Formats: sequence, C-alpha cells, structure tokens
Amino acid sequence: MPEPSPSELLVVGSVAIDNVTTPFGKAPEALGGSATYFSYAASFFAQVHVVAAVGEDFPKEHLRLLEQRGVDIAGLEVLAGKKTFRWRGEYGFDLNDAKTLDVELNVLGEFRPHLTPAQRKIPYLFLANNDPEVQLEVLEQMERPRLTALDTMNFWIEGKREALGRVLARVDVLLINDAEARMLAREPNLIKAARAIVGMGPKAVVVKRGEYGALMVSAGRFFFAPAYPLEAVFDPTGAGDTFAGGFMGYLARLGVVDAGAFRPAMVNGAVMASFTVEDFSLDRLKRLTPAEIESRYQSFHEMVRFET
Amino acid sequence: MPEPSPSELLVVGSVAIDNVTTPFGKAPEALGGSATYFSYAASFFAQVHVVAAVGEDFPKEHLRLLEQRGVDIAGLEVLAGKKTFRWRGEYGFDLNDAKTLDVELNVLGEFRPHLTPAQRKIPYLFLANNDPEVQLEVLEQMERPRLTALDTMNFWIEGKREALGRVLARVDVLLINDAEARMLAREPNLIKAARAIVGMGPKAVVVKRGEYGALMVSAGRFFFAPAYPLEAVFDPTGAGDTFAGGFMGYLARLGVVDAGAFRPAMVNGAVMASFTVEDFSLDRLKRLTPAEIESRYQSFHEMVRFET
Repeated sequence: MPEPSPSELLVVGSVAIDNVTTPFGKAPEALGGSATYFSYAASFFAQVHVVAAVGEDFPKEHLRLLEQRGVDIAGLEVLAGKKTFRWRGEYGFDLNDAKTLDVELNVLGEFRPHLTPAQRKIPYLFLANNDPEVQLEVLEQMERPRLTALDTMNFWIEGKREALGRVLARVDVLLINDAEARMLAREPNLIKAARAIVGMGPKAVVVKRGEYGALMVSAGRFFFAPAYPLEAVFDPTGAGDTFAGGFMGYLARLGVVDAGAFRPAMVNGAVMASFTVEDFSLDRLKRLTPAEIESRYQSFHEMVRFET
Repeated sequence: MPEPSPSELLVVGSVAIDNVTTPFGKAPEALGGSATYFSYAASFFAQVHVVAAVGEDFPKEHLRLLEQRGVDIAGLEVLAGKKTFRWRGEYGFDLNDAKTLDVELNVLGEFRPHLTPAQRKIPYLFLANNDPEVQLEVLEQMERPRLTALDTMNFWIEGKREALGRVLARVDVLLINDAEARMLAREPNLIKAARAIVGMGPKAVVVKRGEYGALMVSAGRFFFAPAYPLEAVFDPTGAGDTFAGGFMGYLARLGVVDAGAFRPAMVNGAVMASFTVEDFSLDRLKRLTPAEIESRYQSFHEMVRFET
C-alpha cells in the first residue's frame, strides 16, 4: 500500500442516529455523529478516512452518502448483534444550547479503535469528542502525525480530567466551546482560560462561541473569526464538528501547519459550520458546492476589513 | 462666535453619581452617566461639548476632571435646589448584565435641553440614552448636523415605541445592544433584527455585544469588530457610552461619514470601551494616553487578519 499523501486526514469519532427537535421542525432518525459531520465537511478539502463503529441497524443509504463524497469508510466497523449510537435532543429559541432528552450509547460504549498500518501513517488526525482514554489509545497507535487536533466535552472534563490532561499534553490543537474552556481551566475569564489551556500542551486553542464566532490563542497571539451572519438557523447540531472538518480539511489540503495557516483554516471552519446549521442533519451540506464555500469564505474578508 | 470646525461634537445625555458593586470591589459615589463617559472618551479625538444637568450636590472635582480633558462643559447646567441623577447597580461574575438596585432620577426627570445658537451648529451629535421625546426635541433644534447617532434602551422601546420610531427615522446611526435590537425589531434572529432596524431609518445599525464585540449593518453589508481580549474586566459600567465616544470622536476627527469610515470608527469604539472596563468609573481613562489608544487600535488589525 502506498504512503498516504499529505492531504489525507483521519477522523476517529462517532457515527450516530439523531432525533432532533428545534422550534423550526423535527429531524427523525437522521444521520448524525461527530465523525459523520467532520468527514462530510472535510471531504470538500481533502481525502478523509473514518474510523468509527455502527450497529447492524445502521441504514445502508447513510454509508452511500459518505462514499459519494469520496470518504473512505473502510474503517467504519459494523458490529454484529449491536445497535448504533443514538442521541435525542431538543433546542429552544436560544439555539446555543441543546437539551439532551435521551442517549443510547450502544456500540459507542465498547468500541476500541484499532488502526490498520495504513491508517497509522495518515498525517492529519482529528480525535472527535470521546473518552480521553480512548483518544490516547488512538494517539499512541499513530506513527508520526503531522498535525493532531482534539475535541472534548464537559462530561470528560468533569469525569476524566487526569486522562484528558495526558491527551492534551500530546496534541497540537484543541477545539472546544467557551463554557468548556472555562471549565477545563477552572477560570471564568475566557482569555485567561484559553491561555491556561495552551499551557497544558496544545500549540493552539480554538474556542467555539456559536453565533459569536470563534477565537484562537496561539503563540501568545489572538485571532477572531466572526460567525457568518445567517438570517435563519434551523439546527445547530453538528456545527462544531463541521467547523473542525473545515479547519482540518483546509490544513491537510494546504500542507502547512503553522499559526498563520490556522487563521484561514478557522475561517473555513466557520464557513462549513454556517452551512450545516442552515438545515437539519447533513441536508444543507448535501446540496453544497465548492463555489458556495469559496464565495462565503471570500465574504469573511469583507466582513472584518477596516482601513485606518 | 465663529462657526464650529468639523471636528466638533455635541453630546446630550446624563451626568450621574454611580454606586457600583462588582465581584472585584466597589466604587462608591463615583462619577458616571452617559454624557460623562461619552465626552471623556471622545475628547481623545475631537472637541466635545456637553449638554446635561446636575444638581447642587454635584462635586466640583468632577467638573474639573472633564475640563482638564478639554471638554466644554458650558452646557452642563447646575439646577438650583435639585439633586444629581443617581444609579446604584451590581454585577455578578457574568459581567454582561447589570442589576439595577436603585435609581433616583432627580434632575434627569425634568431637564429639557435648550441649545444655544452655537450648539445648534455643531456638525456631529450623539443623543445618549434618554426619553425619545427629549431626543426628538434636541434633534429639532439642530441646524444641519453632518452626522447624528442615537442610543436607547429597553425601557423606551417598551414604553415609547412610537416616539422612538420618529427619532429613528431622522438619525444616521443607531448604537444598541443585542437584546434591545431584538426587542426593537420584535425579531429573535439578530441579523434579521438589525436589517429590520435599518428599514426604520438609520443608515447604519451598530449592535454592541459586550465581550463578543460589535457588528454593524449598513448599506446591506456587515462588519464585525471583536472585543479586545482582556484578562481582567473590573467594571463594565460606561462601556457602551465610551464605545459611542470612540466611534463618534473618530468620525468627527476624520470628517468623513460614509460606511467605510464607520468601520475604523467601530474599532476605535471597541478600543475605548476596552480601557473603560479595566477599572471602576473613569479611573482607567484618567490614566490613558493617546499612544495606548493607537497601540490597541493597531492590534485589532493583527487580531482579524487572515491570508488566503
């Protein structure tokens, strides 16, 4: 098997069946999961390989959807006699916070990823939200990743802080939302919190703030990306993972991983997230064209430009 | 009397005695009020004239403070036998929302500004938060203002919507916070709300979002300015009025009032607000130098810049 080219990207995360209700409608039995959103978004920029597990109940048409985007799903294991991870959630008019109504971990509770020799050589790795002990096991299987990025959540910050600390010490980028950044650093001021997290290991911390955009702290400097101004947000599910997909996909395509490259990568993250929330599940992304991505990306220049 | 030069600026608003408590301390009997914060901030950019009223109890050292900055306080009336407007408020660790504990309107409840012939000719006007009927009276006294900007609050949006609509139809810029923009437009989506407000009259709507920065909608375009990243916010009182002071002061100095000029004006607003919140009352502004303003302004270029 040939060496992976620099524009190849590995994601280890979840593939789910979501049942989502927002003030604007319902998405029953919809395709979801961190690895799904991430890989679909990143596929516009780079060759993506997914490592995840589903159950025997997982609909075949969802697999076809990822394949049609050129996502490599050889690492998507179908566990015999098991069921797919399920999440049921609801958003109110304040679309910033999801209320989880029900979670069935199913395959997610027992899946321990074992990477193939080819997967271990992939240069770009995204560790989607997961038990930090599992994230660490994946990291230890990688040979010489060029760039590693991590997502996490309050559940692991509270319950597995020590293991999370060990992962953080070894990744390049942490993508995290603002409340979780404050919780992780035990610091109410977000700027201090982000700086403190940089002190835990990562070269860059990207703080996602929903409709307020995202900020990055890296090498003692700040970068702010606004959220694209949308007149209608239908369903925020997957925004964070598509942000990560745009971010990592862009970097994998560019082949440059310094702090300067993280900036347009964040803008591509914001662009991909803005499309995701315009419809339920992956519905907007399914209709998305590269020209639309490019056009929205360019509009960010115009939205932040000012002359002295 | 000579004609006012283009860099002269008039503010009509309040001068107050504030008693503020935050998690970081107390500022008892402190100088406050919209016209105070506005004029102090704007004085770094242009010649400011204040029209406001105080009572006989108003400390003389506060007047000297404004005079030392070159602010013209000839229009600051001391009403005989009356008391100064007083506000007592408290902030929790979430510094975004003030809790008003007590308000004594005193002179503010009865003051109707009568402008002198010279004041009527001043080209730049800021109507600080006030009863929209009073704001309209002031506007009607102006001869040919080059640029007029308005602030308002939930109290007037709820209680005097019709009068507020009449002022809005006649001003160039509305500066408003995000919750109030939604309330004014009766629209939960902020982007739709801002567009709807532009439809009510102003050429530009500047939405202040506290620690998340500010956005402007003007001529169908968006501009986003982040908030300067601060590791310590002591007291948010006056942030909105110093933002307006930096915004209008910069425009008065520049002498250009198109949408392109509004952008660096917003950044100057964000710069001035960021200094204000670093200490109680005007304490940080009292120590502020033009070099510090320039340095923080330049850092905004660096914080939003990205290359394709």
